Amino acid sequence: MRTKILLNEDEIPRQWYNLAADLPTPMAPPLGPDGKPISPEMLAPVFPMNLIEQEVSQERWIDIPEEVLQLLYRWRPAPLVRAHALEKALGTPARIYYKNESVSPAGSHKPNTAIPQAWYNKEFGIKKLTTETGAGQWGSALSFAGALIGLEIKVYMVRISFDQKPFRKVMMETWGGKCIPSPSNQTQAGRDVLAKDPDTPGSLGIAISEAIEEAVTDPKGETRYALGSVLNHVMLHQTIIGLEAKKQLEKAGEKNVDVVIGCAGGGSNFAGLSFPFIHDKINGADIDIIAVEPASCPTMTRAPFAYDHGDVAKMTPLLPMHSLGHTFVPAPIHAGGLRYHGIAPLVSAAINDNLIRAESLHQLECYQAAVTFARTEGIIIAPETSHAVASAIREANKAKDEGAEKVIVFNLSGHGLMDLLGYQKFFAGELHDYAMPEEELQKTVAQLADYPKP
Amino acid sequence: MRTKILLNEDEIPRQWYNLAADLPTPMAPPLGPDGKPISPEMLAPVFPMNLIEQEVSQERWIDIPEEVLQLLYRWRPAPLVRAHALEKALGTPARIYYKNESVSPAGSHKPNTAIPQAWYNKEFGIKKLTTETGAGQWGSALSFAGALIGLEIKVYMVRISFDQKPFRKVMMETWGGKCIPSPSNQTQAGRDVLAKDPDTPGSLGIAISEAIEEAVTDPKGETRYALGSVLNHVMLHQTIIGLEAKKQLEKAGEKNVDVVIGCAGGGSNFAGLSFPFIHDKINGADIDIIAVEPASCPTMTRAPFAYDHGDVAKMTPLLPMHSLGHTFVPAPIHAGGLRYHGIAPLVSAAINDNLIRAESLHQLECYQAAVTFARTEGIIIAPETSHAVASAIREANKAKDEGAEKVIVFNLSGHGLMDLLGYQKFFAGELHDYAMPEEELQKTVAQLADYPKP
Repeated sequence: MRTKILLNEDEIPRQWYNLAADLPTPMAPPLGPDGKPISPEMLAPVFPMNLIEQEVSQERWIDIPEEVLQLLYRWRPAPLVRAHALEKALGTPARIYYKNESVSPAGSHKPNTAIPQAWYNKEFGIKKLTTETGAGQWGSALSFAGALIGLEIKVYMVRISFDQKPFRKVMMETWGGKCIPSPSNQTQAGRDVLAKDPDTPGSLGIAISEAIEEAVTDPKGETRYALGSVLNHVMLHQTIIGLEAKKQLEKAGEKNVDVVIGCAGGGSNFAGLSFPFIHDKINGADIDIIAVEPASCPTMTRAPFAYDHGDVAKMTPLLPMHSLGHTFVPAPIHAGGLRYHGIAPLVSAAINDNLIRAESLHQLECYQAAVTFARTEGIIIAPETSHAVASAIREANKAKDEGAEKVIVFNLSGHGLMDLLGYQKFFAGELHDYAMPEEELQKTVAQLADYPKP
Repeated sequence: MRTKILLNEDEIPRQWYNLAADLPTPMAPPLGPDGKPISPEMLAPVFPMNLIEQEVSQERWIDIPEEVLQLLYRWRPAPLVRAHALEKALGTPARIYYKNESVSPAGSHKPNTAIPQAWYNKEFGIKKLTTETGAGQWGSALSFAGALIGLEIKVYMVRISFDQKPFRKVMMETWGGKCIPSPSNQTQAGRDVLAKDPDTPGSLGIAISEAIEEAVTDPKGETRYALGSVLNHVMLHQTIIGLEAKKQLEKAGEKNVDVVIGCAGGGSNFAGLSFPFIHDKINGADIDIIAVEPASCPTMTRAPFAYDHGDVAKMTPLLPMHSLGHTFVPAPIHAGGLRYHGIAPLVSAAINDNLIRAESLHQLECYQAAVTFARTEGIIIAPETSHAVASAIREANKAKDEGAEKVIVFNLSGHGLMDLLGYQKFFAGELHDYAMPEEELQKTVAQLADYPKP
């Protein structure tokens, strides 16, 4: 009974897959403050040009630099695991596989893009990167990458998560990164928010504003900003997950995959697993691809497709995406990494082209799924990941009802060892479900009315 | 440049190695309350007979049951990693390798014995296991094993660690285990200690007494006790580490190993890596094998070899081991897993036969080594593990001074993601070194005077 499907060093994918090259409907361009498509040069104060080139690339396959591969190889290829014990507990005829991205030293899929982003910045002569983090996975991953590659890292962490997870800061510091709660008084964007609402839990949108502000105001020009999700080049770097998974499924003797599942906040772990399968779907494969979000932050399932900023202070270009509006502050649920007002333009485009479907779940069902998973498969997963597991359990139960031997693959995006407060509250009965009322939804999306339509 | 050396599923060792079969000087037997060697039957209220047979076995090789292998295979074989980045940072000609045991779902090497112990108990018809835990690694591992195999788990956690690491309890609970601080008022042993010293930080010796008491007083006889270190069968189960490492070193093209290092509290991770190399040493290989302990708990370097109990309430037999005396309560350093008054009889025997040497290090040097390791190799290690890393750095610097291309292998016994409070205090300058004064040592070992001599 084979549980773990591994790849050898020489089987690691050597190119990333760019979904932009294959989308049936070309993506709307990002727009500048003047409402006109932005040029690569306009992004130069924020990102190094080598990453901007990836951001706008229409090439289907992009080479992974050899030095990046060497660093990724410290924990990759990540295992694909057959969830025999979970299947047995559910009594499902489905074969469930998960890609275990929790094996990275930072504990999630985030280093897959942190390493190349740090590397390209270093190549370009940059000395320091600023960034935001929600649950802390991304800030940890970038601090990890900064240590390995030799860059100074400064992380603005959403205050609610900073308070809930005090040891994330220590983790980043151990790798040499600096971490402060956002909103902070170190930036104009932060001070503006604090002036209006000193007790705000913060949001990824606010933290992004602060990080970008610090990067673009460096008088020496040696600082850039790094984003852990949403952007095209981030999705690109994560596709190594799905490319490995496809090779591993082949090794496991699986000819067809029926269902592919990932949780989605900004969209990066979902994209990482699913985009290579979307490639197959575009070429005729029959795959149900599901992006799962929390009901309390229903970007994909209920928000309009619109032009919106990626951050509160409107420092980013207008991006074509499903969005609840850049000023939206999500309810403080424990899946901090899923608390984002928008979703990656590439994921939005895939939704619009009916290549994937979105699903929203409540947190109690997700925590229950996480506990089931821990007691069968043995891994304590991140609250974000629990959304993918809950969805996989739904699909496995559906397969049971149908008596169908489906193949279900989901992304185990990270472990939950830094997120045990959420489990503690779940066991204590202190967590509750929350669905956004329709009036609240209408009120927040009203802010999108004045922007151009994609 | 090859970093990670993996083994395939079919290369996993299928037998454990029993050092007892090869010791030049036969071990002294454990003694009962009457001062006479105990019989296997006398241990029957504490352990199931199938594990007692392993405890007293003189067979060199013992088969690993197929079902145990299947469970171990969830994360094993564990990677052997060449520490290129650390070597570069040190400028050493030495080639440093580490066996990465932090990849288990519980985060340490402890599941290597938790899984077989739970499995043998289940086979024997046992329903519940009690145990103690120091830093929390063992209690987590046994809870993990209990979930996978279907046993109720109850963990007595040393109070100082329980307070320092509140999320360890949540981790165990997520796997379905129960965890309470020790000393507790749930056992006579606990109540006795609390009556004398209500503010005691606790110790492994006290927690062991409580766990054994709960096991042997189960009126249904369905409860047994599981120990995470010290005993022969625990050392046996851990030898899979060194057996894998030897195959991996061969794959890496290393014909000789010069130095083998592990940290040692009760001795299990050290034994796991080193015993298969001791086998080679007994057969003529020239290997320097180092067991590293904290200077604040100098069991191997300064305590006498004596008969002593494994626990405070004298519920265990008298074991022949280096011991500071079973009532000794070590200073509350952060490497909770190394705070034990004794050391495994098999490790003690290897010291007495000059097969290994012991070294004691201070905690500040160890934390500094851990930070160096995180910023080069990228892994945040447990405070226990930092003792092995600090020793490896010493050996690598020695090799640099000598211009010698030595091969150094150490055991990365666990990650430190649950131990970040220690790092936080280290960065804040709140940690201090502590060496036990000679008078204190003499005072505590005086309690051994009345026991028989091994």
